[in-house]
Order: sequence, then C-alpha cells, then structure tokens
Amino acid sequence: MVDKFRVIEGGGEKRDMAQTMLELGREARRASRELAIAPRQRKNTALVVAAGLLRTSVADILAANARDMEAARTAGASKANLDRLMLNEARVESMARGLEDIAALPDPVGRVSATFDRPNGLKIERVATPLGVIGVIYESRPNVTADAGALCLKAGNAAILRGGSDSFHTSAIIHACLVEGLRTAGLPDHAIIRVPTRDRAAVGEMLKGLDGNIDVIVPRGGKSLVARVQEEARVPVFAHLEGIVHIFVDAAADLEKAKTIVLNAKMRRTGVCGAAETLLVDQAVAKTHLAPLVTMLLEAGCDVRGDAQTQQVDSRVKEATEQDWRTEYLDAIISVKVVNGLQEAMDHIATYGSNHTDCIITENARAAEIFLAQVGSAIVMHNASTQFADGGEFGFGGEIGIATGRMHARGPVGLEQLCSFNYRVHGNGQTRPG
Amino acid sequence: MVDKFRVIEGGGEKRDMAQTMLELGREARRASRELAIAPRQRKNTALVVAAGLLRTSVADILAANARDMEAARTAGASKANLDRLMLNEARVESMARGLEDIAALPDPVGRVSATFDRPNGLKIERVATPLGVIGVIYESRPNVTADAGALCLKAGNAAILRGGSDSFHTSAIIHACLVEGLRTAGLPDHAIIRVPTRDRAAVGEMLKGLDGNIDVIVPRGGKSLVARVQEEARVPVFAHLEGIVHIFVDAAADLEKAKTIVLNAKMRRTGVCGAAETLLVDQAVAKTHLAPLVTMLLEAGCDVRGDAQTQQVDSRVKEATEQDWRTEYLDAIISVKVVNGLQEAMDHIATYGSNHTDCIITENARAAEIFLAQVGSAIVMHNASTQFADGGEFGFGGEIGIATGRMHARGPVGLEQLCSFNYRVHGNGQTRPG
Repeated sequence: MVDKFRVIEGGGEKRDMAQTMLELGREARRASRELAIAPRQRKNTALVVAAGLLRTSVADILAANARDMEAARTAGASKANLDRLMLNEARVESMARGLEDIAALPDPVGRVSATFDRPNGLKIERVATPLGVIGVIYESRPNVTADAGALCLKAGNAAILRGGSDSFHTSAIIHACLVEGLRTAGLPDHAIIRVPTRDRAAVGEMLKGLDGNIDVIVPRGGKSLVARVQEEARVPVFAHLEGIVHIFVDAAADLEKAKTIVLNAKMRRTGVCGAAETLLVDQAVAKTHLAPLVTMLLEAGCDVRGDAQTQQVDSRVKEATEQDWRTEYLDAIISVKVVNGLQEAMDHIATYGSNHTDCIITENARAAEIFLAQVGSAIVMHNASTQFADGGEFGFGGEIGIATGRMHARGPVGLEQLCSFNYRVHGNGQTRPG
Repeated sequence: MVDKFRVIEGGGEKRDMAQTMLELGREARRASRELAIAPRQRKNTALVVAAGLLRTSVADILAANARDMEAARTAGASKANLDRLMLNEARVESMARGLEDIAALPDPVGRVSATFDRPNGLKIERVATPLGVIGVIYESRPNVTADAGALCLKAGNAAILRGGSDSFHTSAIIHACLVEGLRTAGLPDHAIIRVPTRDRAAVGEMLKGLDGNIDVIVPRGGKSLVARVQEEARVPVFAHLEGIVHIFVDAAADLEKAKTIVLNAKMRRTGVCGAAETLLVDQAVAKTHLAPLVTMLLEAGCDVRGDAQTQQVDSRVKEATEQDWRTEYLDAIISVKVVNGLQEAMDHIATYGSNHTDCIITENARAAEIFLAQVGSAIVMHNASTQFADGGEFGFGGEIGIATGRMHARGPVGLEQLCSFNYRVHGNGQTRPG
C-alpha cells in the first residue's frame, strides 16, 4: 500500500521547496474556504470513515511503522523516542476511537458566544468561525497526524501537518486514511495536507507563513522544537516552551491532602508538561509538613534537590542550585524550597515559573483566592493535582496542545480555541445618526 | 506648566534610544504586575481624578495645543491633519467625559466567561485577566493619549503610548493629568507611560517588543502607519489596514430600505473605516433598484464609478477600473457593480474585501443567513448601515480600534478584548488516575 503515496524525499533546489510549500499553502487556503461553510455532518462523516479505514489498514500501518522503527533504530534513536514512534494494534485502535470521539463532540463553529441587543433594535451576535489554516509541526509521535488533523477539521480549519522524519512512512498511511475520509464525505483532499518531504527547509517555509496562508502554528514536541518555532515564526504560535510547575503548600495546608496531591502531581507521569517540578513549603508548617513530604517523595523513588532547610530533613536530599529552580526535569526529580508565606511563594513563581500550571494547597479560602487571582499562569489550581492540566480533563473533549501565551488561546487548546469569531449584526433598516 | 515635563527630544545615539526604550518596557512590565491585582476602585479613581485635572488644566492644554498647531502649520500640515490635531474647550470636555465614562463601565478583569464542572468534583472557571503591556502608536489626534491610556488602565494593563510628533506638547500635558490621577489613586506612575521623545527610532524599538515587555501593539492612524506596524512588529497587532466595505443589494432588497441604508453608509461620514466603498447590486433588481440608488448618490454629492451597466444609468457615472474595487476612498466616492446573484457578490467580497465590515440588504431571510455565515469579515450586517461598525455602537462602552485579524480580537476592540484569561481550578484533593 505504501507505494501508492507519492513521496517527495527532498533534494530539489531550495527555490523549488519554497514554491512547493507556497502551493500547498494556497491549496490549504482554498480548502479552508470550503470547510468554513461545510455542513457539520460532512466533517463528522469524514472522521468516522477515516476511523474505519485506520482499523482496516492496521496491517499496512504496522508494516510502515516497522520500517520507520527499523530506520530509527539504525539511526540510534533513544528508547523514549522509539516508544513514541512505536504503534501496535491497541494504539491504532486508540487513534481510531479518538477520531470517533472528536466526531461526537458538538460542532464549535456557529456557536454564539455573546449577544448584544441595542436600544436602536440592532441585534448583534458574536459567532464562532474557523480560524483558517493551521500548521502543525511535530516530532516522532505518528498519532498526532490523526489527532491534530481531526481537531483542525472539526473546527472547520484546513491543516498542514509536518511530522517528524522518524514517522515518515507511518504518518503517510494515517494521512491517506484521513484523505479517503474527506473524499467520502465530499470534502476537499487539501483540507488535511501532509507535507510530503523530509526536507527540514519545509519547516522554515511554514514558519514564514506561506504568504499569509497559515494563520497559526502549533508545535508539538520537545523544547528545542518549540523554541525554534517561537523564535522564527512570523505567524501566531499556540505553544508552551516548558512547564515549570509549582505546588505551594500553604500555612493552612492539610498534610494528608498535600501528600496525596504532591505524590500524584510529581510521580503519576513524570514526562508530562503538567508534572510538578518544584515544591514550595511555607515556613509556618515546615516543622510538621516538610519531612513527611520529602520522605514520601524519596520513598516513591523521586530524587529530591532542596534548599538548606530541606537538606537537613534527610541526608538523601541533594543541594538545589539556582539552575534547579529554572529546570523542567520531566523526570523523577523535584526541587524543594521553604518560603516565608504566600507572597514569597508567589514571588518565586513569578521569577522562575513558566506560566503553565501552578497550584496552592490550603484550607484557607482567602489564601486560595489570592493565589488564584494573582498567579497569572494559564492554569492555577487549588487543592488538586497539577496533572489535571489537560484538555480532556477540562472537558474540552481533546486538545491540540497547551498554550502559555496571553493572546487568543491559553491553557488547553481545544476546539473552541481553534476557532475565531465574527460579529453578525441583524437590522431592519437602521442608520446611524450624527 | 509645560516646562515641568522632562522632554527628551531625541538626538542621542541609537543605542541610548534602545536602552531608554528597554527600560521603559521593564517599568511598564513592573507596573502591569501591580495593576493586575489593583482593586477596581483605584483604577476608577485614577480615571475620575484625571478627568477633573483635564478640566482644570484646560488653559495649559490649549496653550500647548496652540504651540503644536503653530509648528504643524509651519511644517505645512494638511487641513485634515490640523483638524485632527486641534483641541478646543469642547474637545477637552469630551475627553474628560470619556475618562468618566470608562470609569463607569463594569470592570472586565475577573469576569468568569465559562465554567466547567467536572464529574470528579473539580470546578474549573475561565476568568478574564489583563493582557499585560499594550503599546499604542498613533498619529496627530491628541485625544488618543487619554482614550487609549484609560481603556488600557481599566482593563488592568500598563500602556506605552507613542503619539505623533505633531501633538507632542499637547499629549505631554494630557499624559501628565493621567499620571497625577494614577498617583492620587496609589497606582504606579508607569502604568501609563508616554514615550518622551520625537525620535522615530522609538517606534522601531516598540515594534521589536522591548525584550518581551510589550504584549500587543495597537496602531491608530493612516494606512502607511498600520502597514509599517503590521510589517515590522514582532508582537501581535490589533489593527485593520483598511476598510473596503461592501453593501450588497440582494434580489429581495426593499428599495426604500436600500436607499436609506446606502446613503447613510456612504455619506454620513466618508472618512471613517465603516463607510461603504463599494455597492453591489443583484442583476435581478438592477432594472428597478440601480438607477434610483445611483441617482440618489450623485445628488448627495457622491462621485460614482461604475461597471458598464452602471455607466448606462447616468452620464455622470465614471468608469470603474480594477483599482477601484481595491480602493478605500475615505471620501465621497463609491464604486458600483452589478453582480449575478448572492454567490457572485460573495465572490467579489472575498476577492476585493478587507475583512472589515460587509452588509447585505434583503428581505429574504435565507439569503441573509447565507451572507452572514459565509462572508468571513469581522463584522457582517443585514439591513443596517455599515457606519455602525464601532465599539460604542456595539455597546462595548468604547474601543481602542477595530481589528481584522483572526486571532484574539476582531471587530471593535473594547475592554473585553484588552483582556486575556486563565483557568482557575477549584479542587478538594483530587488526583488524576492512570
């Protein structure tokens, strides 16, 4: 099945690449115009048909994946990378079910988010519209091809997907299933475009915006990818560079609650962006709370790096350097610091945080209120695990990523955030005086 | 009074300018942190006190304005520019009342725009927060100093205002009144910063974002200013380059309604961005509607440029060239074209429009529905004058401009659009399974 996909493996001149990408951008824009007015049923049909095709193509998908895995192993990919790249029947089934779940979500396009009834009889509605064309740049996970393509489509957007070289053949087949779904539903092929080359110059072209034909870029991958995208993109980006997630154990924290939450926030999965990286403990409860928390973490297999006071708790605690407060470990490591009260905790977060997710543990409602109002991160929590930082857990039905910018989309980026809006003014002949 | 303002008139080395601007950016960021948590009463006090100071300083303001007017006249400014620059007692009073009106608006910060109650008991709120630091770059109108500064402040944002050289001394005094209001209310001086130099390099520094210390730029002025800002800015911009506003007279349009609306939309004020520039008439009603509309416009003193069919209506109609369909006249000139039905009208708008404001006149509800859903402009209207494209008319209580981008803010940019948001998660010990 693989051979039927026309694959451009790069090697052409740079100008050809730029031209090819520009043409893809124009095709995406054309498709986005059709999608913007496509009946919701067609979009859902495309997703459900694609889900069925993923299931019936599982042998082809796994064969392509084996080819990608072999190449990645030969190239010396890390175990973590190989795990991200690897598909099996369960993962393909999960991808197919993901498409069906997105099909079942309410259509975000056309939702009225505000109404203004004016004294002169004008009725003004603010209505969700698609954003346009979304560029997605990702690394080895081939499932992003299905997830991101489906979320963009559901919100009426055309997508230009540029996956990692590692997953080249796997993504090609997943993409073919999506395109077949589009065709069956009578939607344009170019509604979901896969960049058909491994040439990295394609990414550079996307970051320039393809002559106004990409409205927003979503990078999905490690810090170096996100940093490059944020640095070079000439179009808006939905992303977070890192999640330096704090938990502040306030003077009025319940110890048992703190232990449960901290353990889950740090250790449930250490590699996700909502995993806690720094624990701040109020001096007022350091005597009672610090040692139990630190011991619990050490016994759970977590490496603890602390300030002077924390190091006195247990000889296994290493010294935390200035760099530790700035580090997203994404591993079973935590930095721990004793602070003098709520304000010092918030100052620490303002200095070292990444505006992703931060949490206060307290039974003092006023302290919680201040923390939630004054810590400006995209997600602020009271008495809950920071690992809830996820669009699915928020009830968004899925997310294309988590954003820490202040414009348009923040926190989990779901269907609603993949939309723009316009104002629709209903009159009966009104003219403006004066 | 003028002498008490320390005025840097440029001339320093370029590096000094960059340093000065960077320092202003840092001050603005610091002030924005204080503003973000400032009680609403303080912000309102600052505005009301500043309004009073504008009134008591009217003699100083008019003296400074006379100085600016004299310099502008000497420099050969156009009559339109001189009118924009000119203040009198009524205009100062209107500025003062504008500040009081903004003080009286509901505080946008803290508004809960969505709530998600999760099955696990988590209660998630999406709450409006300030955007941060807003850079405003404007031309000769000195009232923008007061309006823009006040809107930014009300939404909890620090503002960096860079007015035109023309209004240099006038803006300095208006700004001094705002700063005195801030001081009286116990808010930081740097909440509203005025760039204290005429050196144009300051604009370039602002467009680079002052090392991450400007979150969004709002240009207020003519097309060349907006074009430069959109081209060079490395931070998000709220703006519209031009308003090529269309009115489509559908096959089911009521002629009297069409006449009333078209006349108002074109001629009420020809220099505003919501003024109509192109009239499209459905071939199906050309016989009955075209001549009366064209004659009405000609008799109102409007220059009409039409396609072949429109030229046959009246010998005073000039030929419309390809360039006319792309032109925002901002004057008593209109281009007129006969189209074959709704789809051709929408195609014309897609090709030549500027995504600002477009209107359909029809008694056919289905045609209106299609037009409003498929024309993707920031504002789409049915049976109402396009001159309603204004935040005040929308009930926003004021606007800092009108935006045509697809991200974050579109249409009139009022207090709500000058805010960002975050998610506040209220738990009672929830941890995430799995």
